[in-house]
Amino acid sequence: MDVYREALKLHRELEGKLEVTLKAPIETKRDLSLLYSPGVAAPCMEISEDPDKVYDYTVKGHTVAVISNGTAVLGLGNIGAAASIPVMEGKSALIRRFGGIDSFPVVLDTEDPDEFVRSVTLMAPTFGAINLEDIAAPACFEIEDRLKAALDIPVFHDDQHGTAIVVTAGLLNAAKLTGRSLVDLRVVMNGAGAAGVAIAKLLRSFGVADIIMCDTVGAIYEGRPERMNPVKEEIARMTNPERLSGGLGDVIHGADVFIGVSAAGALTEEMVRSMAKEPIIFAMANPTPEIMPEEAKAAGARVIGTGRSDFPNQVNNILAFPGIFKGALSVRAKDVNEEMKRAAAEAIAGLIEPDRLSDEYVIPDPFDPRVPEVVAEAVAEAAVRSGVARRTVTYAKG
Amino acid sequence: MDVYREALKLHRELEGKLEVTLKAPIETKRDLSLLYSPGVAAPCMEISEDPDKVYDYTVKGHTVAVISNGTAVLGLGNIGAAASIPVMEGKSALIRRFGGIDSFPVVLDTEDPDEFVRSVTLMAPTFGAINLEDIAAPACFEIEDRLKAALDIPVFHDDQHGTAIVVTAGLLNAAKLTGRSLVDLRVVMNGAGAAGVAIAKLLRSFGVADIIMCDTVGAIYEGRPERMNPVKEEIARMTNPERLSGGLGDVIHGADVFIGVSAAGALTEEMVRSMAKEPIIFAMANPTPEIMPEEAKAAGARVIGTGRSDFPNQVNNILAFPGIFKGALSVRAKDVNEEMKRAAAEAIAGLIEPDRLSDEYVIPDPFDPRVPEVVAEAVAEAAVRSGVARRTVTYAKG
Repeated sequence: MDVYREALKLHRELEGKLEVTLKAPIETKRDLSLLYSPGVAAPCMEISEDPDKVYDYTVKGHTVAVISNGTAVLGLGNIGAAASIPVMEGKSALIRRFGGIDSFPVVLDTEDPDEFVRSVTLMAPTFGAINLEDIAAPACFEIEDRLKAALDIPVFHDDQHGTAIVVTAGLLNAAKLTGRSLVDLRVVMNGAGAAGVAIAKLLRSFGVADIIMCDTVGAIYEGRPERMNPVKEEIARMTNPERLSGGLGDVIHGADVFIGVSAAGALTEEMVRSMAKEPIIFAMANPTPEIMPEEAKAAGARVIGTGRSDFPNQVNNILAFPGIFKGALSVRAKDVNEEMKRAAAEAIAGLIEPDRLSDEYVIPDPFDPRVPEVVAEAVAEAAVRSGVARRTVTYAKG
Repeated sequence: MDVYREALKLHRELEGKLEVTLKAPIETKRDLSLLYSPGVAAPCMEISEDPDKVYDYTVKGHTVAVISNGTAVLGLGNIGAAASIPVMEGKSALIRRFGGIDSFPVVLDTEDPDEFVRSVTLMAPTFGAINLEDIAAPACFEIEDRLKAALDIPVFHDDQHGTAIVVTAGLLNAAKLTGRSLVDLRVVMNGAGAAGVAIAKLLRSFGVADIIMCDTVGAIYEGRPERMNPVKEEIARMTNPERLSGGLGDVIHGADVFIGVSAAGALTEEMVRSMAKEPIIFAMANPTPEIMPEEAKAAGARVIGTGRSDFPNQVNNILAFPGIFKGALSVRAKDVNEEMKRAAAEAIAGLIEPDRLSDEYVIPDPFDPRVPEVVAEAVAEAAVRSGVARRTVTYAKG
């Protein structure tokens, strides 16, 4: 049975992937009086007097909302809120499985950023962090920015930052492996959607100065006369200092790194051959990469990563978001900031010992059990260090 | 240790009462590909093509949202959204424990009915039913009405209808026990808040025609010059046909039934003595009833119910809401209507066999394991009969 038929059957048998269970039994009148009326008034009053105590007495301290409007779901596009629920439940399931914390999906039936932002703001007291998911660009940028400004809990658009963190981790290791320095890298990216912009920003924070981003009409540069918008204007300001123009095939000449968040077949063997010696390729189009690994290898690429689990160096967000939320919640963080994202990328990269680094192993396996714990610890420490933690306890393992 | 201190300690140890767990393991790449990418696309596409299939493949079919803004919490009043979370988690826990279905709390930080209604409408695709909780009157009436009109899932304000259903069940049995006919009863109610109005409506649907409701200034009647509002105007139109005026002490004279949803001490022994012979008293003020059972007994009352677990005949909503949601979800109901509420009241009353009925046993025990199943079955049948069920399967036990 193929994966789609089997997945459909499994979803129908399970009727969804999540259930909500009790942390304590309710079997006696005493249990009722402690967990509900009248005893429940005690934690209510404590929180009413000291709002931060909501972390002590409720689900908030260990629960992440996975929120979407279903406008940009996987490869399916704008399928709407209800049809996106299976993905959001899946995301919550992964947060539980890998992060060891709780998560519940809430889909919102609106494409209006104002309504979306307002609804999430109103429901935020319930949750310790918010994972935005599968929201179409450019609305996703505005929604994330406004929610980060409005809320005192972490807001994280995983499609942007999760991908950025993992590919950055891979690039840190690939650069080390090939003896390259980050500040000297020339990186050419194809695809200027949600993930592309976040990758460019994170790479810049690691000192990568020479980045050229391409969209469907070619390199983005300041003053380009066509297909610009506020997000691309921002890209133009922070990348491509030489204002190179032309198609991907023109600007990739001599580049050390290709990062694709675009579409199958966007990168040809000829383009790879025109890159610097032993180039690094992250071809993350799903399900078919911008170039197949064997073709890239044949054209001289040294390190090749994709989004697929059946090739080496899978750029899988699972490496990032469970640990990020676990770490952020462990210190009751008010935000997930650049320092925390950088710490996550470094922690993921650092999991591969120098003597084990190889062309086929610059990114850890998604099931490597060390990952969430190491990421969480690094993220918690970065939150404390950068002043967004509500408590500065030493991060406790387990 | 008193119940409040012990409840506080327990809440802190548990850090909330709920957790979200997986219905299937995620231990292999195959599991990942079935429950998340790429397999999850299959249920998404099915729902996209046929919206009703969201019940087959997601949490929606078995999950109730418990939604509040914390404006009227237990005896605590308007403590706000965050401080109300322990109550909402408790409610979700009870739905899980007694109804065997899932439930998650969402508090909304707003007192604006427009914002509240809009936010709940946007998030409704995620949930199979909505339990409104602890929302202050009169906003609760408007919010419930507007949500019922906007949504195609059951919306149930438990503070109103849960209480109404259970006290009606008690009254059905008390009338039977004392040889009274519902149509001949004179019922005097004290308290015209959320629960009072719902009780009056449900009693009327059972043929109780002679109801007089009192608020803090006395009997409510059409044309009363003071302290009226749209809800009390509606009460005045459907009750007190003789337009009796005066205080509770005046209008209770000769009444068969007193129903209190008001405050401690509102009913005196003298008032009870002025009622019809062997009157029926439901004194539900919390934690101290309108009259203590021993005083009511001494003044001649025959059947006495309260909201407390340490006296007989506890009017406890737990008898109603878990079975109502279980039954409504079992047939994927679009609404919870009057027929379903009536069916729930009759089912609860019917659980006490005629030969076991007594002054001290007109309402079943909250832990009676038969209750949720019997209520669910009756509610599901009523949903099908009244045309609000999405599927008309015979209700399956278990």
